[in-house]
Amino acid sequence: MSEQLTFPDWIAVDWGTSSLKVWAMGADGTVLAQNHSGQGTDDTAPDDFEVTLLTHIAPWLGRDHTPVIACGMVGAAHGWAQVPHRAVPCAPLGTPQTVTCRDARISMHILPGLMQERSADIMRGAETQIAGFLAQNADYDGIICLPGIHTKWAHISAGEIVSFQTFMTGELFDLLSRASMLRHSIGEGGGIDQEAFTGAIADTISRPEAVATQLFKIRAVDVLHTAQTSVSRARLSGILLGLELAAARPYWLGQPVALMGPPAVTALYDKALSAQGVAPTHHDIDTATLQGLGLAYKTLSTG
Amino acid sequence: MSEQLTFPDWIAVDWGTSSLKVWAMGADGTVLAQNHSGQGTDDTAPDDFEVTLLTHIAPWLGRDHTPVIACGMVGAAHGWAQVPHRAVPCAPLGTPQTVTCRDARISMHILPGLMQERSADIMRGAETQIAGFLAQNADYDGIICLPGIHTKWAHISAGEIVSFQTFMTGELFDLLSRASMLRHSIGEGGGIDQEAFTGAIADTISRPEAVATQLFKIRAVDVLHTAQTSVSRARLSGILLGLELAAARPYWLGQPVALMGPPAVTALYDKALSAQGVAPTHHDIDTATLQGLGLAYKTLSTG
Repeated sequence: MSEQLTFPDWIAVDWGTSSLKVWAMGADGTVLAQNHSGQGTDDTAPDDFEVTLLTHIAPWLGRDHTPVIACGMVGAAHGWAQVPHRAVPCAPLGTPQTVTCRDARISMHILPGLMQERSADIMRGAETQIAGFLAQNADYDGIICLPGIHTKWAHISAGEIVSFQTFMTGELFDLLSRASMLRHSIGEGGGIDQEAFTGAIADTISRPEAVATQLFKIRAVDVLHTAQTSVSRARLSGILLGLELAAARPYWLGQPVALMGPPAVTALYDKALSAQGVAPTHHDIDTATLQGLGLAYKTLSTG
Repeated sequence: MSEQLTFPDWIAVDWGTSSLKVWAMGADGTVLAQNHSGQGTDDTAPDDFEVTLLTHIAPWLGRDHTPVIACGMVGAAHGWAQVPHRAVPCAPLGTPQTVTCRDARISMHILPGLMQERSADIMRGAETQIAGFLAQNADYDGIICLPGIHTKWAHISAGEIVSFQTFMTGELFDLLSRASMLRHSIGEGGGIDQEAFTGAIADTISRPEAVATQLFKIRAVDVLHTAQTSVSRARLSGILLGLELAAARPYWLGQPVALMGPPAVTALYDKALSAQGVAPTHHDIDTATLQGLGLAYKTLSTG
């Protein structure tokens, strides 16, 4: 029996558009092992979800049956199985939906995403992270911002998500820096110039409509005066983030703001918000994901 | 001697980032033959410009020497040879710069682009089209808008370009419709819904800062309510064009506006401007290009 101690009680899965994260979990919430992969739902054919997951978790499967709890785009129309959205306002965590598995060693349970009818919006994954955050900050009343490819701003009150808003900022940055004419000025990777970043944010907040011409100007300045890539990159980042902050103002103005996201992009949001007089708190995103999935696992065991 | 009648007196070239257009020209400005190709300057290695051009114009070259007049990105740093920008305000047409050729059958002359120091901006190609337009509309005082991948708005007065502004609208549309998450809602090609288009323009002009969340909403509406691709495409186009019109307002408000560009995109600008109470005039872009290059050819012959 001592061998079985290494097998997890359950497996946590965060499967988004562009990444797959799996964790082998002990009954007490301990992480026994983990595995991160770039194989997101966009790279997975409808029939390949189960076999893809199994290649990442196979070493963790014993003779006993192991429940798997998943959140993210894995529950979308093009995912493993479509799990309907729940409508806000509501508590972030819904009931995990059990979906079909061919392999008897696992049972698969996917959490529903959220939708907003008025001012149409959708989320899959962020609701689980918000649930995990609230598990540790039960009385939180304010804003949670989850920076990423599609940044989410959620208004939290009385344990519910009251409203939320998604911005394509991260995807715009990615497309413009990699695939547009601006790639010639921005190069690959590298830092960002802080002064150019905060300057571009301030300019864009005061004149957001000028974005499409300010973007071209990044290239024009470089052609005419040879800008450093760290300055051009900072301008692109600052223009796009300034545009987001201009529209998300009702969320952050005069509100507590909690930030959860990948460290590099979250640091940019921190800097941008600080320049507007907001002092956001910081929270680890994977911890929140595991807390949220853990809550769902408990409802499963007691359900 | 009668055979030589089929050979052009000169060759006109418009070589941009993503396309190459060549025309065999008679002395009186008649087009004897033409050739359009997708091999833009972005797809041409520095040493391959001459050989690429020759493959497109070889059938037109006789025993006599033929001058070639070119405009566009062919004169940029990554083009055939870098021809320095001239600074506005100035007349649109500069002196063609003669660049090195290995093949003795042609001589190559490239027109300089324009730059703007205050509110940094650059153009290569549009100045030649504006010169061609002014050749036919000598006393024009107002705005010329050249819709395209990088749309140009130019303020014309007393035969000079006073100022200009470039918007990345076309490239943003291209990237977002092809490569972003919105591709799932927009599909390839197809029409646009007129009502959704003018609605998105009006929404964006009144609240330009909301662009990054309005873009995400295109997808959210489709996921929640299944939108037609013609509606999603119209929203994307209207959001981006509305953003441009909001910033370009000082150009079009209360001014005569002349439109020159590819017919499909120009029709969208016409519709968008008409909704703002502007009645633009329409002018053929290739005619303007050939007029502009023809003026440069004449300075060459008399110079």
